[in-house]
Amino acid sequence: MRVILASRSPRRREILTMLGVKFEIVSADVDESSPEPDPTALVQELALRKGRATRDLLAARGEWDASTLIIASDTVVAKGNAILGKPADDADAARMLHLLAGSTHSVISGIALLTGEREITDADTTAVRFGPMTDAEIASYVQTGEPRDKAGAYAVQGLASLWIEGLDGDYFNVVGLPVHRLGALVHRFLGVTLPELGRK
Amino acid sequence: MRVILASRSPRRREILTMLGVKFEIVSADVDESSPEPDPTALVQELALRKGRATRDLLAARGEWDASTLIIASDTVVAKGNAILGKPADDADAARMLHLLAGSTHSVISGIALLTGEREITDADTTAVRFGPMTDAEIASYVQTGEPRDKAGAYAVQGLASLWIEGLDGDYFNVVGLPVHRLGALVHRFLGVTLPELGRK
Repeated sequence: MRVILASRSPRRREILTMLGVKFEIVSADVDESSPEPDPTALVQELALRKGRATRDLLAARGEWDASTLIIASDTVVAKGNAILGKPADDADAARMLHLLAGSTHSVISGIALLTGEREITDADTTAVRFGPMTDAEIASYVQTGEPRDKAGAYAVQGLASLWIEGLDGDYFNVVGLPVHRLGALVHRFLGVTLPELGRK
Repeated sequence: MRVILASRSPRRREILTMLGVKFEIVSADVDESSPEPDPTALVQELALRKGRATRDLLAARGEWDASTLIIASDTVVAKGNAILGKPADDADAARMLHLLAGSTHSVISGIALLTGEREITDADTTAVRFGPMTDAEIASYVQTGEPRDKAGAYAVQGLASLWIEGLDGDYFNVVGLPVHRLGALVHRFLGVTLPELGRK
């Protein structure tokens, strides 16, 4: 089976590599705006949108059939009613970190699998507990540049780990790919395990 | 400040590197047997033993003073009354995985900091929920070799993530170094943050 990761995220690439999956990256630009207020529905909608755009791209090249699988994903950070995507700039990153410091928020990742005429989605939620951060710590963290391209303006797999007291759920879901759910979804969708998939 | 990591674990090395700490590795062999039945006390005792052995090694070389900091750590897996270290062989790894599959266990990491005449320890506990594993899955996972040098016979940062439904606590504590507690302990011990330490 040919496996396509519909994402340019280096974190997602590292996770799939860690799982022993052989894959290629094909990613198409999509409109990520949506009126959907529920984050769990939103990330599945956006993952599916990314997956379909990639499928259309492959189909246009004459490369789409039932022996190709697309894995697409989308991750957001939710705090109360606010949904945080990637920060617009450093000031926006600082604003997000002020919102997250000293409290618990949710990270929700959606996944979509597409092959032939079939598609399926799922999502997973992980709670993340941030310890307090002083203004100086936030400024210093923003200055490292790490928050720039991360949903919620932090990297759980980076320096932010110093302030993260703990989490409840799948760690890799916070990095950007809900590994446990993805493995289960692949098994339900195709009848094989994720590591078997790349070798099929 | 000269920072010494008293551990040969590649995972601990990666975590300290991720935190921007400049450090060297100096590690001395210690007797890891102990009658201590409480895992939280045990890992602090073993971390301190590793730290002291490394301190003695540096002192013997005339390299020990108050401008050097040793970070030592020890990690165990606890399930009920059983404390699981590294598996003796593949059969032992399979036995451990049978014990962990389909249930929740604790991972406890102890840390010890030593500088000059001073020493301090702390520990952190993370709960890990394993989904069910079939005999074939356990055999196949053991065959990958990943369980070999890991406490509890699995790597949370590897293929085992497929079976881990979630965890509660510090993820890096399961990898082998409780980052949040370590940062807080360094600050309490030396009055600086962990990233500042390497630059001091």
